Amino acid sequence: MSADTSVPRADGRLPGQLRPLRFQNHIAPHAAGSTLIEWGNTRVICGVTIEESVPRWMKDQKVTGGWITAEYSMLPYSTLDRKARDISKLKLDGRSQEIQRLIGRSLRAVLDLEKFGSRTAWIDCDVLQADGGTRTASITGACVALGLAIRKLMAEGKITENPLTPIAAVSCGVVGGRPLLDLNYLEDKDAAVDMNVVMNGNGQFIEIQAAGEETTFSDSELAELLRLSRSGVTELLKLQAAAIESGS
Amino acid sequence: MSADTSVPRADGRLPGQLRPLRFQNHIAPHAAGSTLIEWGNTRVICGVTIEESVPRWMKDQKVTGGWITAEYSMLPYSTLDRKARDISKLKLDGRSQEIQRLIGRSLRAVLDLEKFGSRTAWIDCDVLQADGGTRTASITGACVALGLAIRKLMAEGKITENPLTPIAAVSCGVVGGRPLLDLNYLEDKDAAVDMNVVMNGNGQFIEIQAAGEETTFSDSELAELLRLSRSGVTELLKLQAAAIESGS
Amino acid sequence: MSADTSVPRADGRLPGQLRPLRFQNHIAPHAAGSTLIEWGNTRVICGVTIEESVPRWMKDQKVTGGWITAEYSMLPYSTLDRKARDISKLKLDGRSQEIQRLIGRSLRAVLDLEKFGSRTAWIDCDVLQADGGTRTASITGACVALGLAIRKLMAEGKITENPLTPIAAVSCGVVGGRPLLDLNYLEDKDAAVDMNVVMNGNGQFIEIQAAGEETTFSDSELAELLRLSRSGVTELLKLQAAAIESGS
Amino acid sequence: MSADTSVPRADGRLPGQLRPLRFQNHIAPHAAGSTLIEWGNTRVICGVTIEESVPRWMKDQKVTGGWITAEYSMLPYSTLDRKARDISKLKLDGRSQEIQRLIGRSLRAVLDLEKFGSRTAWIDCDVLQADGGTRTASITGACVALGLAIRKLMAEGKITENPLTPIAAVSCGVVGGRPLLDLNYLEDKDAAVDMNVVMNGNGQFIEIQAAGEETTFSDSELAELLRLSRSGVTELLKLQAAAIESGS
Amino acid sequence: MSADTSVPRADGRLPGQLRPLRFQNHIAPHAAGSTLIEWGNTRVICGVTIEESVPRWMKDQKVTGGWITAEYSMLPYSTLDRKARDISKLKLDGRSQEIQRLIGRSLRAVLDLEKFGSRTAWIDCDVLQADGGTRTASITGACVALGLAIRKLMAEGKITENPLTPIAAVSCGVVGGRPLLDLNYLEDKDAAVDMNVVMNGNGQFIEIQAAGEETTFSDSELAELLRLSRSGVTELLKLQAAAIESGS
Amino acid sequence: MSADTSVPRADGRLPGQLRPLRFQNHIAPHAAGSTLIEWGNTRVICGVTIEESVPRWMKDQKVTGGWITAEYSMLPYSTLDRKARDISKLKLDGRSQEIQRLIGRSLRAVLDLEKFGSRTAWIDCDVLQADGGTRTASITGACVALGLAIRKLMAEGKITENPLTPIAAVSCGVVGGRPLLDLNYLEDKDAAVDMNVVMNGNGQFIEIQAAGEETTFSDSELAELLRLSRSGVTELLKLQAAAIESGS
Repeated sequence: MSADTSVPRADGRLPGQLRPLRFQNHIAPHAAGSTLIEWGNTRVICGVTIEESVPRWMKDQKVTGGWITAEYSMLPYSTLDRKARDISKLKLDGRSQEIQRLIGRSLRAVLDLEKFGSRTAWIDCDVLQADGGTRTASITGACVALGLAIRKLMAEGKITENPLTPIAAVSCGVVGGRPLLDLNYLEDKDAAVDMNVVMNGNGQFIEIQAAGEETTFSDSELAELLRLSRSGVTELLKLQAAAIESGS
Repeated sequence: MSADTSVPRADGRLPGQLRPLRFQNHIAPHAAGSTLIEWGNTRVICGVTIEESVPRWMKDQKVTGGWITAEYSMLPYSTLDRKARDISKLKLDGRSQEIQRLIGRSLRAVLDLEKFGSRTAWIDCDVLQADGGTRTASITGACVALGLAIRKLMAEGKITENPLTPIAAVSCGVVGGRPLLDLNYLEDKDAAVDMNVVMNGNGQFIEIQAAGEETTFSDSELAELLRLSRSGVTELLKLQAAAIESGS
Repeated sequence: MSADTSVPRADGRLPGQLRPLRFQNHIAPHAAGSTLIEWGNTRVICGVTIEESVPRWMKDQKVTGGWITAEYSMLPYSTLDRKARDISKLKLDGRSQEIQRLIGRSLRAVLDLEKFGSRTAWIDCDVLQADGGTRTASITGACVALGLAIRKLMAEGKITENPLTPIAAVSCGVVGGRPLLDLNYLEDKDAAVDMNVVMNGNGQFIEIQAAGEETTFSDSELAELLRLSRSGVTELLKLQAAAIESGS
Repeated sequence: MSADTSVPRADGRLPGQLRPLRFQNHIAPHAAGSTLIEWGNTRVICGVTIEESVPRWMKDQKVTGGWITAEYSMLPYSTLDRKARDISKLKLDGRSQEIQRLIGRSLRAVLDLEKFGSRTAWIDCDVLQADGGTRTASITGACVALGLAIRKLMAEGKITENPLTPIAAVSCGVVGGRPLLDLNYLEDKDAAVDMNVVMNGNGQFIEIQAAGEETTFSDSELAELLRLSRSGVTELLKLQAAAIESGS
Repeated sequence: MSADTSVPRADGRLPGQLRPLRFQNHIAPHAAGSTLIEWGNTRVICGVTIEESVPRWMKDQKVTGGWITAEYSMLPYSTLDRKARDISKLKLDGRSQEIQRLIGRSLRAVLDLEKFGSRTAWIDCDVLQADGGTRTASITGACVALGLAIRKLMAEGKITENPLTPIAAVSCGVVGGRPLLDLNYLEDKDAAVDMNVVMNGNGQFIEIQAAGEETTFSDSELAELLRLSRSGVTELLKLQAAAIESGS
Repeated sequence: MSADTSVPRADGRLPGQLRPLRFQNHIAPHAAGSTLIEWGNTRVICGVTIEESVPRWMKDQKVTGGWITAEYSMLPYSTLDRKARDISKLKLDGRSQEIQRLIGRSLRAVLDLEKFGSRTAWIDCDVLQADGGTRTASITGACVALGLAIRKLMAEGKITENPLTPIAAVSCGVVGGRPLLDLNYLEDKDAAVDMNVVMNGNGQFIEIQAAGEETTFSDSELAELLRLSRSGVTELLKLQAAAIESGS
């Protein structure tokens, strides 16, 4: 199986092409760092709040360094049918639970908590519009927001060395027999295989999650999807760097 | 007591002057109508979702017409100290509860539910940045978002006559002995009296909520605050009309 | 518009006439102060419990003085159709939430927390029978119960100077075009405008909440309602003073 | 071991003597039947609400006849230290859970659900003052309130034959080596054995709950406690009958 | 009335005969003590975890000695129709609540908390298969698991003297007019009277719970049921002792 | 990097060697299928309950075929420090949430829901002892329990064709620089990379989850881990087949 690059997708993209990406920084000025990532028709507000203390269990267990924790939520008007708020059901949505654990794990893997210092970074990702890839947009946007927050902490002299290795996340999948990068909602719905990859700039993996959607997948499909992801992440990291650099 | 109009406030405004106001419509394109109201440094996302059905109790009690319901929430990064999500405490914040009831009541008073038809309008207000007046910004923004949603329903031929009488809401208060319009957070914190007024274009009241903050207030203070509010609402209604008119 | 005082209401009262009011003190002898307020057919148990400590946040933020907090609930058999307990739904009723915030705010505005000393007053209002005006009965009764509790604290030498300025609350509204004082349930259901006023003996306002019930109201209606409320509160304050004075 | 009847208890009662008992009927006039049972210093409001329908599972399983369900709660000011409301912890108190199951089971055993007809009786017991024996006071009072509700249903022609066999409940225990009837709070705290008995007028048991409080008890102690209970219940049933008969 | 011992029951047992009983110790090796009690077709996992600290309230109130607390739950596949987990309803099942309070109370009555030392014993009983008598199986099994845990603590030198007096629990009831020992599910469903007895080896009671199931019961029935229980407990205590003795 | 197969691990296993595995079927006889999987020191009870109906949303959306849903929980005594039950915190544990979604997704991918028929399979996995790999043990055991349940349904003539394609799951990781198969708890704690793989007998993937634990991993590490997993799954599938075949 190979990605036939000559036939465009429903939205005109080539199989290995990302949707247009844009960061609108400082969308939530009370946060230490924030950005609105617009990735195709998917929009996620990523806000980072810094708390100058660490969780009680760290103090109790005398663990040094800082902490990072993530929360993910879909705003009620982000989906075509209104999504009820978690509080109205008194239960955190299972999918949200899974995604926020992924966001936290990914960033924890690349933030040097000793260098970050004895403080907590709260990562909040709120989906404003959902059109596929909200979890990868959240990680990619959160990394920018965290980068901005760290710049602020460094400017204030609270951190001396940048503790963050940039990462990006991208989805891919097999749709109609073709491996495609960066699925939108319609492609995602039809995907036989759905994969999310988190990588850094050295081509190292932080996290791979691949699932057959009511089907299975082979070694060669996996290999092709990983190849597509790698190329996508490379591009994403450049856009993130520019966004953090620009500051505003 | 009278409002000395010659001495400006800390942020340079006159006592009866509103903070700058701007609507960024269609911030959440999956909603039937949405706007980001930016009012000074207060920012609220207002989204209206339409559900083509009514609550079960209306069917059971054979109540005709439509329904409208409102929810209000502060995003975690909207405040200087991070605000924990309701779901993490399993309790809807008491203040949020009070505010969302006010939003729903205000709009219910001016939406003709028979003309609106057998459907539900969900009003969601999510505060992106809080700098005083989030409840009045929510009502004022929600009215624009609802106006946009109704335009859409009318364009689709689902509603034939506009069922909404526009309203706006504004806060005012007595700060340092002076009645002031449209308090920001710092003024609000110091206010001896705090009032929120919801009005329509005919100068009729929909709702008045006035509270002495650890103090009391007199008839004349009330009268002056109502006068300020009336002038504020008049201005707001013009800005809202322009925002709905422009569509985008 | 004016209140035609010659035509009696359905229950025979004049427009500006209160329903009969009675306090049965010490209904809950384990409380520091308690009263059963019977106001027409509305009955509310008001109990005040004193805790000789303050909330943790006051200690943490080194805030001196005492604290006061209020809870409101309708007993299941207080309404014509049984009202399910909050715990059976795991959610505090939205209306109860709003009312208990109002009770707490009103008493906080007139209790000198420094004079009250480093202790907490818990105000509990439980509706035994609901026939309109339960929130104003709660505030009016709670003020008596708090007065009794303070008398006890003073008798025990724990407080040297009375920290409480008495207040009373009353409802009024426009029914069938006529402004009426102290609405019962049937009048409340038909009211075009519904207002609750909390005042002290000097004619100063503590809180005004006025809402058009699916309609709007004018300046002159507001003025007439405020006039009625003022006269009602004057009468209520006398009855409260007598109830506290009598002790038993 | 035997009950030395010549030595009075701390409150002057003989070992087999009940505390004074009084019923104040119609305390909650919106209920179908209600009474305030005052039993020594224990006071419980018992309200019965009738719902003209049965739970869904009865309809689904085509079970005929009516249903009865009970809820028990301690009002916050009923104890010397304020008792937090269940909703503030989002958990129904374990002891309350146990007691309301006992109340429901006891009344279900003596209410002929076929004769009662296809409706639900909600039994609500709210403790106004707790001084020992609140669960037995709840059952004893609930039986009166249910009797009043049934009288009302019979007067309305909804029920033709009285479906209720009266029951009463009483506590007893071994305190300081002596079996005592109807323990107050101080006696209950010191009791080595604590027993609650529910009986009808024929001396038949509905429920026996006996527990060694950090100790054990013998056959003879059990026998003596049952003898005391039987005499107490006989007396209680007379007082209940008079209370129901009097109506008001 | 007497137990006709010549007619066997549906499962072939005599009226006073226990179902076969077996303990499979160390079913959960991470627990300090654990056993799978198989009692007829009822199976309960009993696990005891030791925590080397006591609840905060004990420290605050300077109560010395240890603590014991019990939890009971039915695994979803333990019943013929799947039993939903408590967490899916956000409510602890009322019957489970009642049972776990009974387990805790029973063991607390026979564990010398001073000798046990300043630690907490968590008793967890999880029903693997329910065929009647799960609460008595839980108490009987928990006593074995606690015995094993104490042996371990003594072997480790943490406790010097055995603080536990063994107890066992058994159910009995009147079925089809006959008093029967150790009811299985089908007998329990048909029982007119249902009783649970907790006793020690000296024939002393720890707890008696007897309930008429939609009926009542007499003194003589009670006496006969207590006789059956006593004989059952004697047998159970031997089996428990052997199980603890064997260790494995 | 390569797996040095000559140096054994702490527990004596070779890098590519599974821990001993054993299935004890019918551990919960009321379930349609159940097994206790013992995999090294990890023990999980897997029970499958069949409900002869489908969720309401399937009926509403007229989706044909059956449904499958999974729940995962750790019993309180399964860990070295007691794990509090979810209900005591009113929150489903985030990790449990993630795992039960994985179990459900994996089985849904290989169960032909049309052939399974209009019924629901509830998969419950309760951890009795946790020593690493509880999620893969759950999937592997659940597949056996589901196989047994299907055999029963087929024997009863309710299903005519086996709708299940067997799968197995195994963990692997990089520990001390070496890729190892089937990590126990101590290895898992030290792993730099942690991976879970779900596969079928044709070497097709159902799910891959790989995470750098506070580090990253390379393509070649991924490849080696996948190779180990493949060999582990092949072995597991044989053991599962034998367990289902044996029935008992």
